[in-house]
Amino acid sequence: MSNTADRADPVFRLHEGGKLEMRGRVPLKTREDLALVYTPGFTRVAEVIARHPAEAYRWSMKANTVAIVTDGTAVSGLGALGPLAALPVMEGKALLFKEFAGLDAVPICLNSTDVDEIVRVVKCLEPTFGAVMLEDIAAPRCFEIEDRLRAELGIPVMHDDQHATAVAASAALINAAKLVDKKIEDLKVVIAGAGAAGTSTARMFTRLGVPVIVACDRQGAIHAGREGLTNAKLWFARNTNPHREKGTLSELMAGADVFVGLAGPGVATLDDLRAMAADPIVFALANPNPEFVPDAVAGVARVIATGRSDFPNQIDSGLCYPGMFRGALDVRASRITEEMKLAAAATIAGLVDDAAIERGRIVPDIFEDVAPEVARAVAEAAVACGAAAGPDHG
Amino acid sequence: MSNTADRADPVFRLHEGGKLEMRGRVPLKTREDLALVYTPGFTRVAEVIARHPAEAYRWSMKANTVAIVTDGTAVSGLGALGPLAALPVMEGKALLFKEFAGLDAVPICLNSTDVDEIVRVVKCLEPTFGAVMLEDIAAPRCFEIEDRLRAELGIPVMHDDQHATAVAASAALINAAKLVDKKIEDLKVVIAGAGAAGTSTARMFTRLGVPVIVACDRQGAIHAGREGLTNAKLWFARNTNPHREKGTLSELMAGADVFVGLAGPGVATLDDLRAMAADPIVFALANPNPEFVPDAVAGVARVIATGRSDFPNQIDSGLCYPGMFRGALDVRASRITEEMKLAAAATIAGLVDDAAIERGRIVPDIFEDVAPEVARAVAEAAVACGAAAGPDHG
Repeated sequence: MSNTADRADPVFRLHEGGKLEMRGRVPLKTREDLALVYTPGFTRVAEVIARHPAEAYRWSMKANTVAIVTDGTAVSGLGALGPLAALPVMEGKALLFKEFAGLDAVPICLNSTDVDEIVRVVKCLEPTFGAVMLEDIAAPRCFEIEDRLRAELGIPVMHDDQHATAVAASAALINAAKLVDKKIEDLKVVIAGAGAAGTSTARMFTRLGVPVIVACDRQGAIHAGREGLTNAKLWFARNTNPHREKGTLSELMAGADVFVGLAGPGVATLDDLRAMAADPIVFALANPNPEFVPDAVAGVARVIATGRSDFPNQIDSGLCYPGMFRGALDVRASRITEEMKLAAAATIAGLVDDAAIERGRIVPDIFEDVAPEVARAVAEAAVACGAAAGPDHG
Repeated sequence: MSNTADRADPVFRLHEGGKLEMRGRVPLKTREDLALVYTPGFTRVAEVIARHPAEAYRWSMKANTVAIVTDGTAVSGLGALGPLAALPVMEGKALLFKEFAGLDAVPICLNSTDVDEIVRVVKCLEPTFGAVMLEDIAAPRCFEIEDRLRAELGIPVMHDDQHATAVAASAALINAAKLVDKKIEDLKVVIAGAGAAGTSTARMFTRLGVPVIVACDRQGAIHAGREGLTNAKLWFARNTNPHREKGTLSELMAGADVFVGLAGPGVATLDDLRAMAADPIVFALANPNPEFVPDAVAGVARVIATGRSDFPNQIDSGLCYPGMFRGALDVRASRITEEMKLAAAATIAGLVDDAAIERGRIVPDIFEDVAPEVARAVAEAAVACGAAAGPDHG
């Protein structure tokens, strides 16, 4: 794949001049228009909002606008490319927000990698936005940033790479288990990669009922007896690997039902897949280069999913985040809860019918009206769990 | 004028749901589209920008995107309404950017009034934006914030209320002097209000060649002998009022050629206008309520301009900022200079022909293709003064 920037290349041709534009939703062709939507009209709206802040949700862009915030430290699987290089990725995320959920999303690429500073900046930005999606921020800083913002902001905050990916992977797991006719409660899952997405995927799989999850980093299995674990990995030691299994990724994959790759090509071999239990389920989620591509595992894996748009069964956070934020904003939820994420996962899974699952489809196509269904389920869950007062709230 | 929020009111109907939307500029209807503008396509663009940061100007939204940054401390003449209430005003500014200059502007309403914090936040935001317009920030903090950002950012920064208003007022002054057949070099100007707009207007009038400018605050004339002046007012004491005139606004207006109101209704009377020199020129610029409305001064003022969209001769910063930023971005200027502002003022003035001036028109209508002309002049001035290397720069 070439990396030269050239208009003859369709990728670059489509990126030229940026992928987004900020357009007016109101007419501005006459002096009468100007008096209504500019001065003096807008000052009357400002006065109303000054007296009744909640009115900003009705008479301004706030209720429909999401900040996509990154520091460029973990850009789409490529590492710390920096905030400027993150811009086309954030623009792509904004495209999905608009196309699938009608939301207006603004890339905010921050020239800072300091946790305190990022938290302070996002708090300063709160008035303009209805919600914040954190994106492509490296672990472990992403955990602290999200935790603090969830505590300190009055609007929903969600780290895409953690939670939206975990929601999509959970939906895929539900359908993959159906396909191979195993119960979730009987599965052993091995995760290669103990970063942000690995942590939240393990969390959600646990909530779905998976009894045995073992995460591996470069040193092998993470278990309660291992020394020198970071805080994030301590979570794995405490909450996964109930039998305290040790060993290499290869050793752990033997007999496992599900392999989740969040580490990149070369981390596991075809022989590792052959050593898994019957009907191996393979989620090769590293982006842009997955651990395995579908053709390479034909006849070995029973089902494979990747994060790529150009292969079938794309486990992409895009299945989740447009609908998740649409649903949260529709009922003006103050936060995004586990219940809302589980509702989203179940809804995404339910969009693939049994016949399609039989044929090897485990996730819906993102173009199959996924977001409106997710939004509906998320909104209901938000009201049910108390994260929102309901559609007439406010 | 009613301030109730009601859909039956056209102002509120047009503001409902916000006045802006973030739209895609590229197709997103198929999985093929997704692979080009989303993953894996966007990662190739990210890699190119990571290696060659200047390429962000070509392959991302940066080159066409302006942040409109406010802290809500001086919202459109209404004072410190706060950042949330500023949102409809910033949205209105963004509408003009798009309509008149094709620029994509993003309201950034900051939940902070601390100078250090605002400077830090805007520095963090720099990667996403091609330029920054500061808006509705109260004096004297606006001066320090602009000065520091101009020094510390590599992209153009301009405080709208100061400079764009001053540019529009300068254009109006050039034509008003023509209309009454006086030379700029013979004028005495009295300014009521010594805030941000007053300072920059006085600065530009001085550069245009006005020999006598006296600014008044609530305590009367600002002169070099007055005690207890703030830093901003010390500027007036040092750079204006060459004859060290003292007294009330009313006393100072006697015999003056031009009255510039930046203070609000009630600051001066019709009798004050009657006491001015022959053919009084009145710029009643307080917003939303000007010092005088045209009907009230008929037969007294020779020419009147206000800041309102619904009266003729609107001296609005909107005559300047869309074209100013368009021109600066077109040649990738690193800053906005005095030369660029003077070029903009002369261009705006030149758009009113002599016959129209005779009939009392001193500023063009904003719908008369002002921005493209201003952009052209500003771009030329930027190259001429060394603020930009030219259209092929970078």
